[in-house]
Amino acid sequence: MEKSAFADQDSAVPQKFIYLFREGAAEMRDLLGGKGANLAEMTRIGLPVPPGFTITTEVCRDYYRNGGKLPSALMQQVKDAMADVEKDLGKKLGDPKNPLLVSVRSGAKFSMPGMMDTILNLGLNAETLRGLIEATGNPRFAWDANRRFIMMFSDVVLDVPKHKFEKILHEYKEKHRLKQDTDLSAEQWEEISSLFLAFVRSESGRDFPSDPWEQLEMAIEAVFRSWNNERAIVYRRKEKIDESLGTAVNIQAMVYGNMGEDSGTGVAFTRDPSNGEKILYGEYLINAQGEDVVAGIRTPLPISDMERTDPKAYEQFIQICDLLEKHYKDMMDLEFTVEKGRLFMLQCRSGKRTGLAAVRLAVEMVEEGLIDKATAINRVTSEQLDQLLHPRIDEGHIIENGVEPVAEGLAASPGAAVGQVVFDADRAHELGSQGQKVILVREETNPDDVHGMLAAQGILTSRGGKTSHAAVVARGFGIPCVAGCEAIKVDVQAKRFTVNGRVVSEGTWITIDGTTGRVFLDRVPLIDPEISGHFARLMQWCDETRRLGVRANADNPRDAAQAIEFGAEGIGLCRTEHMFFERDRLPIVQSMILAETDHDRELALDKLLGLQQRDFEGIFEVMAGRPVTVRLLDPPLHEFLPNHEELLSQVVELRLAVNTLGAHAIQEVLADKEKLLKLVEAMREANPMLGLRGVRLSVLFPGIVAMQTRAILQAAVAVKKRGYEVHPEIMIPLVGHVNELKTVRESLENVARKVLDETGETVPYKFGTMIELPRACLVADQIAQHAEFFSFGTNDLTQTTFGYSRDDAEGKFLQKYVEMKILPNNPFETLDTEGVGKLMQTCVTEARKTNPVIKLGICGEHGGDPSSIAFCEELGLDYVSCSPFRVPIARLAAAQAAIGGRSSAVVDK
Amino acid sequence: MEKSAFADQDSAVPQKFIYLFREGAAEMRDLLGGKGANLAEMTRIGLPVPPGFTITTEVCRDYYRNGGKLPSALMQQVKDAMADVEKDLGKKLGDPKNPLLVSVRSGAKFSMPGMMDTILNLGLNAETLRGLIEATGNPRFAWDANRRFIMMFSDVVLDVPKHKFEKILHEYKEKHRLKQDTDLSAEQWEEISSLFLAFVRSESGRDFPSDPWEQLEMAIEAVFRSWNNERAIVYRRKEKIDESLGTAVNIQAMVYGNMGEDSGTGVAFTRDPSNGEKILYGEYLINAQGEDVVAGIRTPLPISDMERTDPKAYEQFIQICDLLEKHYKDMMDLEFTVEKGRLFMLQCRSGKRTGLAAVRLAVEMVEEGLIDKATAINRVTSEQLDQLLHPRIDEGHIIENGVEPVAEGLAASPGAAVGQVVFDADRAHELGSQGQKVILVREETNPDDVHGMLAAQGILTSRGGKTSHAAVVARGFGIPCVAGCEAIKVDVQAKRFTVNGRVVSEGTWITIDGTTGRVFLDRVPLIDPEISGHFARLMQWCDETRRLGVRANADNPRDAAQAIEFGAEGIGLCRTEHMFFERDRLPIVQSMILAETDHDRELALDKLLGLQQRDFEGIFEVMAGRPVTVRLLDPPLHEFLPNHEELLSQVVELRLAVNTLGAHAIQEVLADKEKLLKLVEAMREANPMLGLRGVRLSVLFPGIVAMQTRAILQAAVAVKKRGYEVHPEIMIPLVGHVNELKTVRESLENVARKVLDETGETVPYKFGTMIELPRACLVADQIAQHAEFFSFGTNDLTQTTFGYSRDDAEGKFLQKYVEMKILPNNPFETLDTEGVGKLMQTCVTEARKTNPVIKLGICGEHGGDPSSIAFCEELGLDYVSCSPFRVPIARLAAAQAAIGGRSSAVVDK
Repeated sequence: MEKSAFADQDSAVPQKFIYLFREGAAEMRDLLGGKGANLAEMTRIGLPVPPGFTITTEVCRDYYRNGGKLPSALMQQVKDAMADVEKDLGKKLGDPKNPLLVSVRSGAKFSMPGMMDTILNLGLNAETLRGLIEATGNPRFAWDANRRFIMMFSDVVLDVPKHKFEKILHEYKEKHRLKQDTDLSAEQWEEISSLFLAFVRSESGRDFPSDPWEQLEMAIEAVFRSWNNERAIVYRRKEKIDESLGTAVNIQAMVYGNMGEDSGTGVAFTRDPSNGEKILYGEYLINAQGEDVVAGIRTPLPISDMERTDPKAYEQFIQICDLLEKHYKDMMDLEFTVEKGRLFMLQCRSGKRTGLAAVRLAVEMVEEGLIDKATAINRVTSEQLDQLLHPRIDEGHIIENGVEPVAEGLAASPGAAVGQVVFDADRAHELGSQGQKVILVREETNPDDVHGMLAAQGILTSRGGKTSHAAVVARGFGIPCVAGCEAIKVDVQAKRFTVNGRVVSEGTWITIDGTTGRVFLDRVPLIDPEISGHFARLMQWCDETRRLGVRANADNPRDAAQAIEFGAEGIGLCRTEHMFFERDRLPIVQSMILAETDHDRELALDKLLGLQQRDFEGIFEVMAGRPVTVRLLDPPLHEFLPNHEELLSQVVELRLAVNTLGAHAIQEVLADKEKLLKLVEAMREANPMLGLRGVRLSVLFPGIVAMQTRAILQAAVAVKKRGYEVHPEIMIPLVGHVNELKTVRESLENVARKVLDETGETVPYKFGTMIELPRACLVADQIAQHAEFFSFGTNDLTQTTFGYSRDDAEGKFLQKYVEMKILPNNPFETLDTEGVGKLMQTCVTEARKTNPVIKLGICGEHGGDPSSIAFCEELGLDYVSCSPFRVPIARLAAAQAAIGGRSSAVVDK
Repeated sequence: MEKSAFADQDSAVPQKFIYLFREGAAEMRDLLGGKGANLAEMTRIGLPVPPGFTITTEVCRDYYRNGGKLPSALMQQVKDAMADVEKDLGKKLGDPKNPLLVSVRSGAKFSMPGMMDTILNLGLNAETLRGLIEATGNPRFAWDANRRFIMMFSDVVLDVPKHKFEKILHEYKEKHRLKQDTDLSAEQWEEISSLFLAFVRSESGRDFPSDPWEQLEMAIEAVFRSWNNERAIVYRRKEKIDESLGTAVNIQAMVYGNMGEDSGTGVAFTRDPSNGEKILYGEYLINAQGEDVVAGIRTPLPISDMERTDPKAYEQFIQICDLLEKHYKDMMDLEFTVEKGRLFMLQCRSGKRTGLAAVRLAVEMVEEGLIDKATAINRVTSEQLDQLLHPRIDEGHIIENGVEPVAEGLAASPGAAVGQVVFDADRAHELGSQGQKVILVREETNPDDVHGMLAAQGILTSRGGKTSHAAVVARGFGIPCVAGCEAIKVDVQAKRFTVNGRVVSEGTWITIDGTTGRVFLDRVPLIDPEISGHFARLMQWCDETRRLGVRANADNPRDAAQAIEFGAEGIGLCRTEHMFFERDRLPIVQSMILAETDHDRELALDKLLGLQQRDFEGIFEVMAGRPVTVRLLDPPLHEFLPNHEELLSQVVELRLAVNTLGAHAIQEVLADKEKLLKLVEAMREANPMLGLRGVRLSVLFPGIVAMQTRAILQAAVAVKKRGYEVHPEIMIPLVGHVNELKTVRESLENVARKVLDETGETVPYKFGTMIELPRACLVADQIAQHAEFFSFGTNDLTQTTFGYSRDDAEGKFLQKYVEMKILPNNPFETLDTEGVGKLMQTCVTEARKTNPVIKLGICGEHGGDPSSIAFCEELGLDYVSCSPFRVPIARLAAAQAAIGGRSSAVVDK
């Protein structure tokens, strides 16, 4: 149980609700929030920070536990802390003579847009305002400060929206023909303050609070309330931030950058956050308050200009930047104010950065001796790395030009692509072959479309989830894809789609962003991936650090080459069915399935044998001695046959034509179609995912996998003769009972031995199985006795463990489940360690009992997911395998897992 | 490792290959086989058994381990044992003067038709034949014996089929115008022996062996070989007898019942095996050999006639019967021979019996003090009990009249039914309501057919497996069903089906046997189930003995009443979707699903509320205070919508009509159908088994289950007001993550409390979940904290653990898997304890950790399967639930499980 502020209220030692800045430290983020902890840290190391204190996140949690009531002892502790600040500055909150004004800011452990941000100048009222005028001798400044306070306080505490005040201000300026805020005099600001106060009264039904202590208490509560406003909740859900953390409240003495030409305010990064270059990067505004910089009312100057305008403060700031980088050992994001030549630090946190910057920063900081390699590895997130691996939208361009997406679908395969719309695969293939850039747009794709998909820059579908045919093929080939974009209505016949009332015809340029799911009409500039020297350097450190092997899933020589370029150490999954789906193969595959005699079937298999052998030769050559795990045919055979519904429609049409129209000439066509339809119907399955596929096919139709095994071994021998090493690993999928593996392996071992006998060569082949059924995990001790390796197929294992058909679940309920927090994550993206992971643990333990040297890997999509890779490290697997484009990410994640996870060195999110 | 005869060959103590009858005992069945062990036992207790010995099953196993070679030391031990027999009888094998003849018989642990049965008169050759003639003074007998020996030996040892000898004999009789075998003289038999020997030479290419020792060795090997002939393999597979047991060989001195009028042979049961009555039951043939009784060449007399023809032997036999029953404490099946007035016992084993007999025997033997109740309970098999629970084919009638089934399908729902063929549900309903007996014949059934199925005597489908709609509904309602009878081609339009070239039109009488899958043309007499006093008595003992509760799966008052009649203690599964499928409901359900506004949806739900409430009231009244587990809606909603393919065909047709024919009048119809088609397509799922169903529906569409919960509670209150206790248990299906249950339960608790508040009543309701996903088992500790009960849905749990879609697997590969011994059983029939069972064990352990008082049951089909029930006892579940017609079987199996399994008291299978 967590400690409760209320529970402790009656105990002897009262709970400490508040930490003065000088009492805290950077490590106290949990208790003080990010902002508070860093203010304390800067104070602790002697930087110029206006004095203040932090109300802990614990108070926020108590606030919610008690149905929205502040602990009764809180305000006394606030007063004590304030007394310390007052003593420090010689000012007092509410003192009409020398009033102390404070800012009130929220500050959670992780920075969170959406919460209440800031109230400035709290403590102002009719009396203290006069004191401020006297103290500054600047009535215009004081009245401006006052109206700002009224606006901000009313907005966040009294629920009177800011824009209504802005409207009043706007009307006032119109009326008085004033253009800029700077054109207003002290008297005019005073008049506006009165207008504001009257407006607050009429809107909120109460007087604006004049007691600074009342203002303060109300502001504190507003911060706590803002933790649970809708925007904050949405943000937390998106960023997976724990609901129960709560926010701290920071109360700090005000300093002013708008006290004249010797004052100013700025924000800066200690390095360039867009590319990581070691230069000070930021902006500065003379005679302005912080919010003016952000609000864009005036155009700020580059921070380097400050060297000229305020060399002393600039010099000091440069030193502080250097000191803070060395102290935090990271690129920092800083806010500061200069009040009459005196520099004050108002905020410091780890700076947000692009992927490019993250990698360069991390590498250069190692070179500078600032951090070690392990820290550098933990500094880069997989998302950042991913940015470097695909062409991406030039976000700057779209912001500058206000380009808005016309629709959003599922981010099915990362990267952005620009091309002209086409609606059928043949056309895509035709234009693509001529070097034209096309985007293939379909309701959904099917195996007949693959040649067109390969020729396209990108794929856009209006139906289907992240494992739809389009998504899987696109990811496999590294082609950007937006799937299930339901706003798009595709009319293939008319060669156009409509989206939100707009009609897009063939040939129109569009841009899709498979990383985010966005679809743009028109051409949006893209930025090509750069694999710079820093990137290579970081990857090298990852390889030195990680224990897990990293392989790629690749089905053809092109992908295999890509995988090697990205650092894969082998192929963990080569899916042979994709070879079957290729355009020139499909008719042969169909004739094999539909063969009426053994002879016909063998003829078809013989044709396939040659083709498959060439496939494998290509892959083995490229892989040059690295292990290649080939999965034998997995999908149900009916997947290779014509679509049932299309056939049915054709048959109905033909029947009508024959019966009604007497079109007897087509009777033969009808008969053929009817026969095919009957066959397709006989082979169809209610739940193909749980049907006649995987090893079940191999048991029932041993000819196909015997052909495949022969092709693998013949290819291996041929490639070996060309001087390459070859390490084929033959993987039998979907085993659930040891006898399946035993039976099939025995018969395939015979085939393999026969090929080697025939050729007189030796090839070090292995047999293993994919673990993708709960039962396989439960009896892994038995299965492991007949396998040299296991590879977890966590896609299917997740499907069967949860009883989710991914195709159905992702479209129909998974998203809702995650939104409703029934599931913490989409288990197809992030491994469910509680359920699926428990089965995997059982499998690993049982398998190693009977076969201690068994090689264990994973080749489901989770093999490229960092948190799942961390779990694989925990399980002690030997390798992970993922799509070629995820290989660098897997290398990074494997290294991070070996170190023990991304470290707490990352100060702020 | 098992001991190997060969391995021991060189060791100091030679292995004992052979046991003399006087050395063995009934307990040695494993080693001596059933026949050998019982011959030994009879010898041991002093009954008159011709001397002999048994070669052990171990020798058979060694024979196979060594690639079909007898241990070299075997024949020496045979000689030693034979010497003992020879000494006993004063005869010698091969002695031309006083030859010993022996029989050679196989005898495995379980009696096995299909193996080599018997060679009689072994030891005969030209010399010993003369000796036999001298010794008996009966040349006709001797030559007859000789030709019998040649036939049998050639058939089983030399592979010269018996029927070829019979053909020779037949032609000989034709030629000599002889009718009966008895018409042949000694000389004629001698001539036939010569013909036979010549024939053997020409067929087998070798001389018939004349050395008795060679004959014996060849015969022994033939017995071992016969263990692995095809028929034996098929039989073992069917009866689930372990391949590796092997058979023993019994060698026994011959005695002859065909030595004259003071000789004879007979078979008898100590009680009537057809009804269990305590009377000697059997047949006797004077002057005949054993095989004559079996062969039916002469009509035997009732055994009671023996009292008149041979009172002395009869008297002795009666005493032996009594002694053996008391000794074995079971009804025995005996074979004996009287040689010249002297009685010899040749075989004794536990007698096969009908279900009726099994129950009566067991109960009466307890009353006689012969056995205790536990033994009685273990004496009855579930198959025997099942015979008593359904109308059954009069097997006697079909044997007598040579009635053959015209086709065989899957035994989908037990019991036999006679009726006139109809092809649509409306017609079935119409005729059925008029009291006509109909059999509904369909390709497969669907929810629209239920009213017709309920009105039919039986259901016959040409497609679909044991969980097809037809099978599930039929079993649920106890209607006999043969499913997936592929030989039948149904033509609904033409109102007829064809089967093996015969056309069967509407109105034709047929008979189906859902217990075996047979289909007969014409009316076959049925026998109605009798629940006799003995049956009730046995059930009472079962109830006193068992620990497991027994509930029934029942969806309506009729089934509930049936369940109570059969002894159910509650309802373990009330499926509410069957209520939705009813003909008057389906349109309302569809309008709920298709509702375009909340208002329309609520209207539909309101209508359903009233109907569901009435459903539940009916069930609660019948159950009168017994617990009723109601499962909330489970199937995907699209199951309630019109069939997609039919719609598609209609739309294609309508489109053509509009476009081609200009039939504009139907444009509106087309538009409606197109809209519906779009909706059906949007809801369709790739793998509905793993789709939007169960609790997922409740999460996404809470209105439906809220309505159901309200209906349950309102019904409970209403029935309570009528003076009944009500114990509703609300079951939320398909939970995989604890949050699903938490979320849904919370909202339904609100509904329940609201109903009780509104009515001011209290009802002791419970909430629980069905455990049917691997993940649910793995995180049962979490789920159990939010459930008062779990019920294992082992159908789905088996599907997901194995990754089998039952619908697809049973038709496509499961049967083959069992045949190929990849799986020991169909896991949907017998629980897979290794995989699924391991998950259940995890679930039980984890659940009780966090909720020690949780009630655990099973309501999958395994709940009615005896071996699965035994496993449930092992797991310590609280109850099993099965279809009403399985309830008595479950009571029996639960009692047997409590005692510790069907005991070894059952001497022979």
